[in-house]
Amino acid sequence: MTTPLRHLPTDSTRTASGGPVGNGLFTYSQQVESWVIRATKPVSYEIRITDDLFNPKRRDLLEAGERTTGPLRRFLVVDAKVNALHGNRIRAYFDHHEVDYHLHSVPAEETVKEFQTAAHIVREIDEFGIDRRNEPVIVIGGGVLMDIVGLVTSLYRRGTPFIRVPTTLIGLVDAGVGVKTGINFNGHKNRLGTYFPAELTLLDRSFLSTLEHRHISNGLAEILKIALIKDAALFTLLERHGDLLLEEKCQGLSSTGELAATEVLRRAIHGMLEELQPNLWEAKLERVVDYGHTFSPTVEMRALPSLLHGEAVCVDMALTTVLAARRGLVTRADRDRILALMSALGLPCWDPLLATPVLGEALRDAVRHRDGQQRLPLPVGIGDAIFVNDVEEEELEASVKELAELALVGGKR
Amino acid sequence: MTTPLRHLPTDSTRTASGGPVGNGLFTYSQQVESWVIRATKPVSYEIRITDDLFNPKRRDLLEAGERTTGPLRRFLVVDAKVNALHGNRIRAYFDHHEVDYHLHSVPAEETVKEFQTAAHIVREIDEFGIDRRNEPVIVIGGGVLMDIVGLVTSLYRRGTPFIRVPTTLIGLVDAGVGVKTGINFNGHKNRLGTYFPAELTLLDRSFLSTLEHRHISNGLAEILKIALIKDAALFTLLERHGDLLLEEKCQGLSSTGELAATEVLRRAIHGMLEELQPNLWEAKLERVVDYGHTFSPTVEMRALPSLLHGEAVCVDMALTTVLAARRGLVTRADRDRILALMSALGLPCWDPLLATPVLGEALRDAVRHRDGQQRLPLPVGIGDAIFVNDVEEEELEASVKELAELALVGGKR
Ligand SMILES: NC(=O)c1ccc[n+]([C@@H]2O[C@H](COP(=O)([O-])OP(=O)(O)OC[C@H]3O[C@@H](n4cnc5c(N)ncnc54)[C@H](O)[C@@H]3O)[C@@H](O)[C@H]2O)c1
Ligand SMILES: NC(=O)c1ccc[n+]([C@@H]2O[C@H](COP(=O)([O-])OP(=O)(O)OC[C@H]3O[C@@H](n4cnc5c(N)ncnc54)[C@H](O)[C@@H]3O)[C@@H](O)[C@H]2O)c1
Repeated sequence: MTTPLRHLPTDSTRTASGGPVGNGLFTYSQQVESWVIRATKPVSYEIRITDDLFNPKRRDLLEAGERTTGPLRRFLVVDAKVNALHGNRIRAYFDHHEVDYHLHSVPAEETVKEFQTAAHIVREIDEFGIDRRNEPVIVIGGGVLMDIVGLVTSLYRRGTPFIRVPTTLIGLVDAGVGVKTGINFNGHKNRLGTYFPAELTLLDRSFLSTLEHRHISNGLAEILKIALIKDAALFTLLERHGDLLLEEKCQGLSSTGELAATEVLRRAIHGMLEELQPNLWEAKLERVVDYGHTFSPTVEMRALPSLLHGEAVCVDMALTTVLAARRGLVTRADRDRILALMSALGLPCWDPLLATPVLGEALRDAVRHRDGQQRLPLPVGIGDAIFVNDVEEEELEASVKELAELALVGGKR
Repeated sequence: MTTPLRHLPTDSTRTASGGPVGNGLFTYSQQVESWVIRATKPVSYEIRITDDLFNPKRRDLLEAGERTTGPLRRFLVVDAKVNALHGNRIRAYFDHHEVDYHLHSVPAEETVKEFQTAAHIVREIDEFGIDRRNEPVIVIGGGVLMDIVGLVTSLYRRGTPFIRVPTTLIGLVDAGVGVKTGINFNGHKNRLGTYFPAELTLLDRSFLSTLEHRHISNGLAEILKIALIKDAALFTLLERHGDLLLEEKCQGLSSTGELAATEVLRRAIHGMLEELQPNLWEAKLERVVDYGHTFSPTVEMRALPSLLHGEAVCVDMALTTVLAARRGLVTRADRDRILALMSALGLPCWDPLLATPVLGEALRDAVRHRDGQQRLPLPVGIGDAIFVNDVEEEELEASVKELAELALVGGKR
């Protein structure tokens, strides 16, 4: 997948004219001697819905990675809560298939999303020993663990394949769908990370049965984001069935609940992929999926551990919805529908941090991150978005004040 | 640079037949519901020879990175020895051009090539604050510092551009030419790293004037590697002028020395790039440039700090030259020429670690790294190479014994 480098004539080191020679890949002249190297890296990865993943009859988890002689060897990193709740069936599966595995359990939540946790996993992998090409590391857990293990595998020997099995709703519809990995560092959210796709992601929503309702709400926030910026039909589905999804934890306990869960998850994943795929490495800095992610990284880190990721995103969306309504981009009626849906999904519209100077700071950090401009996505009605670059501190303050009142009236703070 | 994802029909969620639909990017059926995402990442980088880089008239260092309004801001990471020896002209250059810079000096050598050093640089960058797209970090130093800063910038906000100015011979012909970054971890050489090109590498050999002779020899080892595996003419140049290059530190103090330095450096870089460019991400595991790098990573880490990187590579090449000669791939005469040249270049052919079980261990680790096979490059005569997969411990031991005798006779141990 690389274009050949022009070969330097082995004997003549100077062209007669002294002018540049070459085909664009290699330029040589008496004044400027330089090599320009060009190449393209092909990437492909799969996301597969596989309910009942640990049924011994299913082979999805075994088939990734090339087969070599001898027994399969796999290094598993499993969220400690998932291990406590589902460890037996996970172990039974690998035992049944006679896999030589090591299960490393990690108590994961936002505060451990840091280098020490990653380093510990590296040491364990070193000790188990894996072939770097055909023994993919398998991570079973939420967004925190997937982000950490993604970073570890992208760095381990400069890249070792990995497979993701998300066990939270945020994992199923967001963290398990893209290619971003990361850890927090120096007080900043995801300050260190890579773009590194898991070769395979297997989505099994049965894991959600043991997830706390608060974490279902947390995932619904990222689904709501997709609805707000690009999918009005998804918004309607959430309005109609969001409470049922929350109550049933997307397990399809009723037939309406089953239909709603299937459709909502599929639309959310599909919508996310449509946005991510043409811009995998974020060369384009205007990303609608950044909606809700301008103020939230700073708010989330400051509030730690009180706000979850999706909750912080929801607070950001509530604020920017009010700001958009003030600009006439969203009607008051739609604004109120949005805030009401947030509450129905069990999400906060307000956090006391909003009333502090943290917002200005967050905006400045986002500007650094987005190459000198705000590139702030704002909803347009329900289901569309635009980018703006002209938000001023006063406008923010006024929006905060208005949100405080609305949230108070709605009993949402 | 991405192929669009097929849009999921928003209303029909099942095809009539239940068979897969899509264009290869997205497959959907009743049995298997999956998304396959494909994309290609384009990469390009430049390596430019710019002797006299810090002459205030030269603008190479300023021109990389997009211009924004206001003064240029640059974060510089400089090797502490380089800072002591060349810091004045570096600072004078940036002062002259009114750049708002922060110079972070790092005492670099192999033992500090670890996460703590990288973490410290990240904190300093956070404190200075940089725009992630158009304020490239500039690293001025040897292979150790370039590898660390390359890793830092590849991780910082998931990728921040950087510019390399190598100040050692290994840096000029090897570490500054490819795209690999890394740090040592858990006792393993470069255990954590990435593939991340510096957008621009500026080669100014005047830095070598202050480098210890031992470090010139160290760089000559990597040049010798290129000569052995693919460039007989470069070998001849080294036989004729290697001692002069070492003595003059490639500064061209005599006219022969100037011609030799120019030609040897250019051939070495060009030969290296020919091998790297078609295989930038090392998808192909048979790499001739891995010659000398099978046993050396383990030997180098075990001997730390007594052997330098190129010295460890040279010991590996001496051993594998003897092994190749035993197999009849290299004549005894050529074997002796090679060992003699190593000595002439001030390089060791022997290390006491060779006589320990470390070699078997190193080979096993290389096999893990090369996907289950040895893929050991061996020289064929001078200027060519093949790969073998069948080296046994006895053959290694016999080669070690033979090398020990040869090195003793030649007075090279
Ligand atoms: N890489 C990306 O593109 C991306 C996208 C969105 C979010 N994220 C990241 O994801 C993280 C949030 O993810 P999260 O909400 O999954 O957090 P999480 O991984 O901390 O999981 C939440 C909690 O649920 C527990 N848990 C996980 N699975 C469970 C199960 N099946 N049953 C019971 N308990 C279970 C965990 O132990 C944890 O306490 C954030 O760090 C965020 O930055 C990353
Ligand atoms: N990324 C790659 O592709 C690649 C290739 C080859 C080697 N490497 C790595 O490079 C490292 C070896 O590089 P190195 O030999 O440059 O080591 P180094 O960076 O440690 O430099 C060697 C010594 O020279 C000093 N120094 C640097 N420039 C100087 C100057 N101009 N004058 C005086 N002193 C100076 C340094 O302070 C250090 O003490 C190893 O870690 C190796 O793994 C990487």
